[in-house]
Amino acid sequence: MSVMMQYLFQGFNCRADRKYRDMLLDIGTEEIGHVEMLCTMISQLLDGAPADQVDELAKDPLIGAALGGMNPQHVIVSGLGATPSDSNGFPWNGRYIVSSGNLLADFRANLNAESQGLVQVVRLYEQTTDPGIREMLSFMIARDILHQNQWLAAIDEIEQMDGPIAPASFPRELIVEEASRQFLNFSEGEESSQGRWANGPLYDGTGNFEYVAKPQPQGQAPELKPAADHQHSTPGKAPYITNPPTSF
Amino acid sequence: MSVMMQYLFQGFNCRADRKYRDMLLDIGTEEIGHVEMLCTMISQLLDGAPADQVDELAKDPLIGAALGGMNPQHVIVSGLGATPSDSNGFPWNGRYIVSSGNLLADFRANLNAESQGLVQVVRLYEQTTDPGIREMLSFMIARDILHQNQWLAAIDEIEQMDGPIAPASFPRELIVEEASRQFLNFSEGEESSQGRWANGPLYDGTGNFEYVAKPQPQGQAPELKPAADHQHSTPGKAPYITNPPTSF
Amino acid sequence: MSVMMQYLFQGFNCRADRKYRDMLLDIGTEEIGHVEMLCTMISQLLDGAPADQVDELAKDPLIGAALGGMNPQHVIVSGLGATPSDSNGFPWNGRYIVSSGNLLADFRANLNAESQGLVQVVRLYEQTTDPGIREMLSFMIARDILHQNQWLAAIDEIEQMDGPIAPASFPRELIVEEASRQFLNFSEGEESSQGRWANGPLYDGTGNFEYVAKPQPQGQAPELKPAADHQHSTPGKAPYITNPPTSF
Amino acid sequence: MSVMMQYLFQGFNCRADRKYRDMLLDIGTEEIGHVEMLCTMISQLLDGAPADQVDELAKDPLIGAALGGMNPQHVIVSGLGATPSDSNGFPWNGRYIVSSGNLLADFRANLNAESQGLVQVVRLYEQTTDPGIREMLSFMIARDILHQNQWLAAIDEIEQMDGPIAPASFPRELIVEEASRQFLNFSEGEESSQGRWANGPLYDGTGNFEYVAKPQPQGQAPELKPAADHQHSTPGKAPYITNPPTSF
Amino acid sequence: MSVMMQYLFQGFNCRADRKYRDMLLDIGTEEIGHVEMLCTMISQLLDGAPADQVDELAKDPLIGAALGGMNPQHVIVSGLGATPSDSNGFPWNGRYIVSSGNLLADFRANLNAESQGLVQVVRLYEQTTDPGIREMLSFMIARDILHQNQWLAAIDEIEQMDGPIAPASFPRELIVEEASRQFLNFSEGEESSQGRWANGPLYDGTGNFEYVAKPQPQGQAPELKPAADHQHSTPGKAPYITNPPTSF
Amino acid sequence: MSVMMQYLFQGFNCRADRKYRDMLLDIGTEEIGHVEMLCTMISQLLDGAPADQVDELAKDPLIGAALGGMNPQHVIVSGLGATPSDSNGFPWNGRYIVSSGNLLADFRANLNAESQGLVQVVRLYEQTTDPGIREMLSFMIARDILHQNQWLAAIDEIEQMDGPIAPASFPRELIVEEASRQFLNFSEGEESSQGRWANGPLYDGTGNFEYVAKPQPQGQAPELKPAADHQHSTPGKAPYITNPPTSF
Repeated sequence: MSVMMQYLFQGFNCRADRKYRDMLLDIGTEEIGHVEMLCTMISQLLDGAPADQVDELAKDPLIGAALGGMNPQHVIVSGLGATPSDSNGFPWNGRYIVSSGNLLADFRANLNAESQGLVQVVRLYEQTTDPGIREMLSFMIARDILHQNQWLAAIDEIEQMDGPIAPASFPRELIVEEASRQFLNFSEGEESSQGRWANGPLYDGTGNFEYVAKPQPQGQAPELKPAADHQHSTPGKAPYITNPPTSF
Repeated sequence: MSVMMQYLFQGFNCRADRKYRDMLLDIGTEEIGHVEMLCTMISQLLDGAPADQVDELAKDPLIGAALGGMNPQHVIVSGLGATPSDSNGFPWNGRYIVSSGNLLADFRANLNAESQGLVQVVRLYEQTTDPGIREMLSFMIARDILHQNQWLAAIDEIEQMDGPIAPASFPRELIVEEASRQFLNFSEGEESSQGRWANGPLYDGTGNFEYVAKPQPQGQAPELKPAADHQHSTPGKAPYITNPPTSF
Repeated sequence: MSVMMQYLFQGFNCRADRKYRDMLLDIGTEEIGHVEMLCTMISQLLDGAPADQVDELAKDPLIGAALGGMNPQHVIVSGLGATPSDSNGFPWNGRYIVSSGNLLADFRANLNAESQGLVQVVRLYEQTTDPGIREMLSFMIARDILHQNQWLAAIDEIEQMDGPIAPASFPRELIVEEASRQFLNFSEGEESSQGRWANGPLYDGTGNFEYVAKPQPQGQAPELKPAADHQHSTPGKAPYITNPPTSF
Repeated sequence: MSVMMQYLFQGFNCRADRKYRDMLLDIGTEEIGHVEMLCTMISQLLDGAPADQVDELAKDPLIGAALGGMNPQHVIVSGLGATPSDSNGFPWNGRYIVSSGNLLADFRANLNAESQGLVQVVRLYEQTTDPGIREMLSFMIARDILHQNQWLAAIDEIEQMDGPIAPASFPRELIVEEASRQFLNFSEGEESSQGRWANGPLYDGTGNFEYVAKPQPQGQAPELKPAADHQHSTPGKAPYITNPPTSF
Repeated sequence: MSVMMQYLFQGFNCRADRKYRDMLLDIGTEEIGHVEMLCTMISQLLDGAPADQVDELAKDPLIGAALGGMNPQHVIVSGLGATPSDSNGFPWNGRYIVSSGNLLADFRANLNAESQGLVQVVRLYEQTTDPGIREMLSFMIARDILHQNQWLAAIDEIEQMDGPIAPASFPRELIVEEASRQFLNFSEGEESSQGRWANGPLYDGTGNFEYVAKPQPQGQAPELKPAADHQHSTPGKAPYITNPPTSF
Repeated sequence: MSVMMQYLFQGFNCRADRKYRDMLLDIGTEEIGHVEMLCTMISQLLDGAPADQVDELAKDPLIGAALGGMNPQHVIVSGLGATPSDSNGFPWNGRYIVSSGNLLADFRANLNAESQGLVQVVRLYEQTTDPGIREMLSFMIARDILHQNQWLAAIDEIEQMDGPIAPASFPRELIVEEASRQFLNFSEGEESSQGRWANGPLYDGTGNFEYVAKPQPQGQAPELKPAADHQHSTPGKAPYITNPPTSF
């Protein structure tokens, strides 16, 4: 449901070349269908279960997790239907979607969403041996693989134009140049020095990674003024009101 | 705060090569410092404001948005301090972080987080002309650019090993092969046929994108059985109880 | 708890004839008692359960769902007491209540709340065979039936005055008249043509339902301007800042 | 967005006669279009606003409230696009929708949703004098009036079959009969005796309303047993552990 | 509203001596009245405001914060009435209340709630000069002061019996004794050595505070095993399924 | 996690004597370590569990509750890792922390947090007999006992200066004096007259508690004006618009 809403809102809000809007709405519309498929699957799995067995059934993590069905609510609230909640019964909410207007940033959000989604569907596949459900999941796995390919393609198209930093439009001469190269080793151990993220060229072509084993504090120590009187926060102050009443 | 918690939890939960854990905790620890910097900045901006002007100040979107400061709560609840809420006063919550255990998927989540974050910091920079704040933001912009470079590097390292699909470990012969190639044109208009996502080789090397201008329904139409009696959902049923009481 | 808070807030905020306020507070006060009854029932059901069996007990959907008791929290957090959460442990929140000030709209919200509530209590009744609980539920079912009757009566009283559209006070000559008659068949299949909602007189007496089997797009296609520069959203733009700093 | 999701989920989960499913999906699909219309309106209203005026604009309650646009997030997070949040920036969530499987209860939820919605759109209309927006709102008002008519029709159809209590299927002989007639005057004042809800026949034809001016407590006073030892709740108990360790 | 619900739930769930239950319900009932007073105050402040000025009014932090009134919703959704939300429009929710069953812990929660509440009401008092509102706030301030006195008294009563640690019932010989005395100086700077929390007798009479300027790591470094195969998390693994299908 | 974030934010925002800030950051930093310990414990407990047994394991309330692990998400979403959610899978959120700037109020919040926390850890201890987990919990119990001692000490230090009411700075002559002494017996029964809260000296030294067995209403009955026309709330009003359009 997150990808459905994310792609639709990105499409509705899209101010770039029309082909992006059309592509986003194509995939968003497909995802409406996927939500329907999952609702139908859940409803069918609950079909015909007597009152006291539905709960057993709903404990199966596959049913429980797919779209929404933690158990007591299935039997009592939703009437053996799916609900827009996760496998803990926590409702889907609007802060789950990302639609910033910046295409590179948003396509990365989409690639992430499809990657997390595929990992979860594959784990669901592992947990069931029901051939019907596995067949439907195989179809969804194929679509998620395709969608990862599509977002990789869309990202590639933008990076060809603008390079790999989102957004590309902030002038480099305004940043603190040094800070854009140094990997700072803040936790114990130096195993982190061995990765690609600490060695070799930066991906935006502006220099090389630099490993700082013992980072030093920069800037001054934080210093806050005492609280304002009207905040009534400071111990040891005599009683007062900043605007005392003249009378009632 | 999302990146701080996300990197720390990914690090605490990390079961892969130790260098990943160390790297995640390095960056997570740095982000604790960024949260402190933002708290201090907000508190300093609110310093010395009289009771009836703080609200004015807090309407400035820069202060309001940076970490948490929607206005009435600053003056009344938090005592001129920062709060873990967004610029609408909506509290940060644990569903914002991603920690799936799959490194490729999670590093994409991290790249997305840094991309969205940089877009937002750049927009904040546009909205203020205060040199002190701009200077601090320039430092943060540099770190966000570096962090994008780092996640690009970490992703590259995994993709060299496993290819671009997360997770790589689901056997290809089990998927519905056709469905992994076809871009389905579900919305009106065919502008979406012009993108890289509809033409040329797939990024996982398994074939080429294929554009389907008029997708046809697949599978059977969904069919649900009538509701079970104990659900009391079906119109026109006579009164009944599935397990009638024998007595009270 | 939703109906308790909903009726109390509607009553506290009521600006219409005093009898409505009094009636809302009567029923709202009764609902405080129902919350107490449910808390007591849950606490009594948990009475005397040893540490390792309480969890078993709490898996029973009846206990779990009635007011709040998903299991681990009962034993660990609430000390064998009830909590203001639903059967998924999701906390009750203030967005659940409706209090718009418009009596017809709000009484419909109340009729809906009592209808959903009764469906749920009846399903709970189906899931237990404990005579004590069934006896208490029988009492609650009777009150919910009465409350449905009461909201039907209150709605009837307003509709006698104002007709069935809430609010009644928008002048009909200002609406797009055609759009207020046509049932638009947007999904596949035309089974929807067979209902009362597609045939016969409108309930507000302004004409007849009209079935449109193939609705046509109205209005122009949506067209958004490119994003503003200060949004840093547009691919292919050179680096820039809308208000470049003159110096640091 | 709530009605869109509510009708779609009710339709996807529908187990009754096929015409209901088709009707629900028709209206749900129309509501997808309404969400797009509102997104487009918000994006267009924000078009071309310079960085420092967008905030001003977004303070206008019409823009702010229509679908989601509290100000700082519009400029910083969503890139001058709409977001799935309310006028306080609180995200839409899955608990807002009702889909119980019982058609009468759910159609009442839908009638309530359209009534609340129309009250809100009419109030928005009052707050703007922009002819373009008023024109679009006039169209939406007409559709909301039609939708109220449609749910009244669908409710009427079910009530013809089953009477006005949802659900109809609980046997009347099992309820506490007396409790289904009495209006209990729990708050101060007896103005509530003057309404239709306290006089005349019940709407389900089972008798007459009865006004109880001074309701008496029924049932026994609640009595809870002391907390179990393993709960560590009881003052004055000596130190103990219910299963002491034999050793570490 | 939090204190109202907190005291009522603590009272409904109370398993200790009856006088605690009665006291909790006394104060909880008083708080229902306070909620009504705040609702009435908000509604009266909004009285008679024309459509386009209500928003101005609602920007006043006093009105906005008291119980719920962020602006656009007041005019559009709640019909000039109060809503159960905070000054950011974020709804009250059930996780705000504390009811653990342990009286000492819960009375401390109550003392905290009244302390935070009084700080907020005093700040509200500072922000208005309206004599009518100040008069009502003076009454509420007096009640909050009394309630702090009452919870101090109730805490005192329990501590006389059981000492100051909640719960008192865990046997001291089972804890890691050393860890119950040492203040660990984990952040930079040693100013923390100067407080009462680092010097002098412990309040539970078991010894003295001890200041550890340079705490050393205890226990072994955390070590997690590689992820299980069925989790599809480990880079560099060949494709596999833990329970491969025998056929479809 | 709540105490970690609460102490860090209180420290970052601290405007009082530097020793308070340093102390808050010391304990906040220690709590980061406790979060890591719990994450590691949960991950280790899940180690090596096959796909279909993890769910069984996760039903154990100890694992489920400690930091976040309700079951289906452990296996499907978090990859056998911990998540920042409670034992119902409800995510941690920013409204859980208290940071008002007033030290006495905030230290009471901290004492409450450590008291609730210790009650919960002791209950967890009761539910497991695993020696390894009990050993780790014994360490945490010791630290929670120490932390209660520390907040008692910090509170004592402030109360020595300012007395027991938070905040101390509101002038007593401005309150409604009578209301600061009277315990009002609002619920049935007079058992509440027997506690220390109804007898003897007030803790702030301003007089004695006074028990009012039959409290009388004070102030006038609430009276709201009819709703404004532009709210479209009043039954029986003819159609109208407050600013009718002159034309479209």
